[in-house]
Amino acid sequence: MKTIQLKSIPAITATDTYAFAPGGFADHTTPLILNCWYVAALASEVSRDIISRRLLGTEVAMYRTLAGEPVAIRNRCPHRSFPLAKGKLDGDILQCGYHGMQFDPSGRCVNMPSLPITPSNASVRSFPMVERGPLIWIWMGEADKADEALIPDTHWLHDAKWKSVQGSYYMKSDYISMHENLLDQTHFPFLHPGAIGTPEYARSKLDVRQDGEVIIIDRQLKNSPPPGVYGVPTGLTGKPVHRYSEARFASPALHVAFARIVDPTPAEGAQSDYRFNITHIFTPESNGAIHYWWFNSRDFKLNDQAADDYLHEASAKAYLEDVDALEWILDVVTQDAQPQFDLNFAPDKPGLLMRRVIHDRAAKEAGASY
Amino acid sequence: MKTIQLKSIPAITATDTYAFAPGGFADHTTPLILNCWYVAALASEVSRDIISRRLLGTEVAMYRTLAGEPVAIRNRCPHRSFPLAKGKLDGDILQCGYHGMQFDPSGRCVNMPSLPITPSNASVRSFPMVERGPLIWIWMGEADKADEALIPDTHWLHDAKWKSVQGSYYMKSDYISMHENLLDQTHFPFLHPGAIGTPEYARSKLDVRQDGEVIIIDRQLKNSPPPGVYGVPTGLTGKPVHRYSEARFASPALHVAFARIVDPTPAEGAQSDYRFNITHIFTPESNGAIHYWWFNSRDFKLNDQAADDYLHEASAKAYLEDVDALEWILDVVTQDAQPQFDLNFAPDKPGLLMRRVIHDRAAKEAGASY
Amino acid sequence: MKTIQLKSIPAITATDTYAFAPGGFADHTTPLILNCWYVAALASEVSRDIISRRLLGTEVAMYRTLAGEPVAIRNRCPHRSFPLAKGKLDGDILQCGYHGMQFDPSGRCVNMPSLPITPSNASVRSFPMVERGPLIWIWMGEADKADEALIPDTHWLHDAKWKSVQGSYYMKSDYISMHENLLDQTHFPFLHPGAIGTPEYARSKLDVRQDGEVIIIDRQLKNSPPPGVYGVPTGLTGKPVHRYSEARFASPALHVAFARIVDPTPAEGAQSDYRFNITHIFTPESNGAIHYWWFNSRDFKLNDQAADDYLHEASAKAYLEDVDALEWILDVVTQDAQPQFDLNFAPDKPGLLMRRVIHDRAAKEAGASY
Repeated sequence: MKTIQLKSIPAITATDTYAFAPGGFADHTTPLILNCWYVAALASEVSRDIISRRLLGTEVAMYRTLAGEPVAIRNRCPHRSFPLAKGKLDGDILQCGYHGMQFDPSGRCVNMPSLPITPSNASVRSFPMVERGPLIWIWMGEADKADEALIPDTHWLHDAKWKSVQGSYYMKSDYISMHENLLDQTHFPFLHPGAIGTPEYARSKLDVRQDGEVIIIDRQLKNSPPPGVYGVPTGLTGKPVHRYSEARFASPALHVAFARIVDPTPAEGAQSDYRFNITHIFTPESNGAIHYWWFNSRDFKLNDQAADDYLHEASAKAYLEDVDALEWILDVVTQDAQPQFDLNFAPDKPGLLMRRVIHDRAAKEAGASY
Repeated sequence: MKTIQLKSIPAITATDTYAFAPGGFADHTTPLILNCWYVAALASEVSRDIISRRLLGTEVAMYRTLAGEPVAIRNRCPHRSFPLAKGKLDGDILQCGYHGMQFDPSGRCVNMPSLPITPSNASVRSFPMVERGPLIWIWMGEADKADEALIPDTHWLHDAKWKSVQGSYYMKSDYISMHENLLDQTHFPFLHPGAIGTPEYARSKLDVRQDGEVIIIDRQLKNSPPPGVYGVPTGLTGKPVHRYSEARFASPALHVAFARIVDPTPAEGAQSDYRFNITHIFTPESNGAIHYWWFNSRDFKLNDQAADDYLHEASAKAYLEDVDALEWILDVVTQDAQPQFDLNFAPDKPGLLMRRVIHDRAAKEAGASY
Repeated sequence: MKTIQLKSIPAITATDTYAFAPGGFADHTTPLILNCWYVAALASEVSRDIISRRLLGTEVAMYRTLAGEPVAIRNRCPHRSFPLAKGKLDGDILQCGYHGMQFDPSGRCVNMPSLPITPSNASVRSFPMVERGPLIWIWMGEADKADEALIPDTHWLHDAKWKSVQGSYYMKSDYISMHENLLDQTHFPFLHPGAIGTPEYARSKLDVRQDGEVIIIDRQLKNSPPPGVYGVPTGLTGKPVHRYSEARFASPALHVAFARIVDPTPAEGAQSDYRFNITHIFTPESNGAIHYWWFNSRDFKLNDQAADDYLHEASAKAYLEDVDALEWILDVVTQDAQPQFDLNFAPDKPGLLMRRVIHDRAAKEAGASY
């Protein structure tokens, strides 16, 4: 057994086993990354009724202005820490429910009823928000680094050429393990027997690439019948097809998977190419709890209710299996009296690359030399 | 923005904003004051059935002797820590439910059944209690400082010239914030719209005094219609009246408010002067939880059930709004990943004076030089 | 009042009172003893369905091989900490439910489906198990010290000359206090009035012996009517009998009590000698929680359902009184803001000897010099 050295590329071969070297790889205790765009809420969740949600450890209050712009401010009045989401809106002005202090959407105090003047400097922190289709992204890190260009692409979620089904979970796990779960598809036949996993797929050849802080896995599997989740909607169940898939750790907030199913012998006039984009969105509430949203999108049968229903049911079932598994694991990891260095095998390489990316970003934010 | 210095009088003007300087002012983490009389229970709660309650972090067992005297001893047998409230009374002797050890009301062991002799020094700590009308006060600090003269006045609770309605809450908050809530009445129109708050009152002139460790606020508001809570019982709803009120931080255990409503143009033969005394009693269970009892007393319509019912309902509603608000705040303060120095404005001066009094008493009890 | 010195034999006389000297005596915070056989489960609980239980702080998965042998392995896959009890059995092989890793009953990995080879060194820890009648014992300490000869005798639980009734509790207490409870029978008349306790018994002469790490108490009480729990099954209620009893702290995992009731004037042809063996089994889940199993065994009326029913009901009632008392005590001890050194009297000597044995074993396991 070898130990991966900090900073080295883990050149795991198919026959090696590594003990985990926690120093250089993120785990469930790693400080959360602040300088990153996360999804704060679905666009449909934010309205003229103020809501609150804990994001990256901080309570955030969210609402929309009269013009429809989403607003996020800290859910804590700067005067006596009253949760601002318990206040009320007067036009675009949020009024605290305790002493009536009023804030505009930028968080600036515009009135303190018990004072003859408006106090200077009495603002509450506001957070930049950007709405993209069904998602509202938030930036909770250093304000001068909030560059919209850093928001990862999810255009298929609001492109008329695509149709999506959607679901969400609040889960007691850590987002590191959820990213790793999606980067190691060898668990499909075991955790998701039936609709998703096929044994040939788990053993198919894997190509792993790192592009900056993005980790990409490509798999190809030719002339093999698709699992139900692809076979049923395409009508290709049981027929040998080619399957090309890319799984992508796009950022700490996002994993996307692009699957392409190609029918090498389509019936006369029939379609031969089918695409599925699967979007997994993770926003840590804190270390140990995640707001998780998923979308399953396709570029065919856009108005087919039966396909919607099947894909929603099959996806929700599989992702709930992941949620359960990762919650069980975090429970064991945090409750067990004896700690354990997990072992690593060849298929763990993408997960380890992701763990190193997140570790390095967290260390950089902490100002650590590493 | 300025920062209040430790030991200085915060001479807040109407246009200043201060960041909190926690060093010299009590907050929810400040050690509880032991050398102080607190209410342990209502007189009606203590009987020949032993009850237990956690007070200032310590489990206390309470009962009455055959002669009716209230007794409080530590709820923990000195032998094997069995909770004594689970034992039983034999006359004035409390017998532990585990090995039968017996204690008199002073806490002295008078019998250990398994021994041929009564063990010397095997006593359980007893706490001085004083019954005053509906309240039983307890002293849990240094025994030689338990001076009954220090019990604050609440004679109106058992004076035939007054009539009271009463309620209680067990709340997950801190008593510092509850005292502050009562010392800053500018929250009335926002947290208690309707029956209690009127905007004119929040902006009426305030006189703040400190008399030793007592903080007193006086307000006067002339020729203004009273809020429902005063208007309905007096029958003066809608009529301009004079309102004189004193809010008093009497001790860490007690806040009292004295309100006088004067009708400048009473109808022929009608009363012109009406008094309300409002008593707020706080006994910390620990840092973060309070036993809270309130009384609303009046010196008129002593036998009017409709006035009782109205005042009970209106008071209970308003105090529950305070309880909810303060519980929300403590939840934010303790759960939020980012700490905050609360801002202070002019109306916060009485609260800051109270926070300094409690801080200084806690520091003195800790033997700290400050 | 005296203080017991570390390492000295506490020669408590009937008239002494000692303050506890926690340094040399185990309490609820003492590290658990690992080098000891504990009961992991009843034989009837372990089958071809994998179960899990937390034992001494560690999650353990248990099942039986096709041949019926009980198997215990750590409930945590060495790869990604998935709880192995959520996996499935294929013959004698346990397969992890996450990535399909397979382990034989010794804990050795025999297959990792996503790899072309079986990884070396990728084993999960297994724990020795020994089945003895209704009990399955486990050894979780140093492997080379797992000597079956150290398993204490409980042959009456599976001897045709004896008949047992049985029950169990999961309790939030500590096993030290439960052992002490059983070693100080002066609590019988107070905590268990009625069926078990008689005042004469609490004051009867006590002989305490220590044999290595075993603590033994002998009591004799002659010509005294038995309590219900012995009187009813033997039919000797109200008749003066002789009662010989031995209570034995056999190991941190086991307390056994042997009671012999002798009728000095049996009716013609009637039995004069009756034996009861009472077995108390404690397996700490952690500091503060216990898996507790009890057996009440007798050597007469082996096929008498009424005796079974009476003994089950009377035992379960008494042991639940112990469970409640010890849970109340641990709650007071851990919640009370003020710590307390418990006092000790003459009848506490056996408990103190036991506390010293456990303390010394824990210190030895920690490698402490003491």
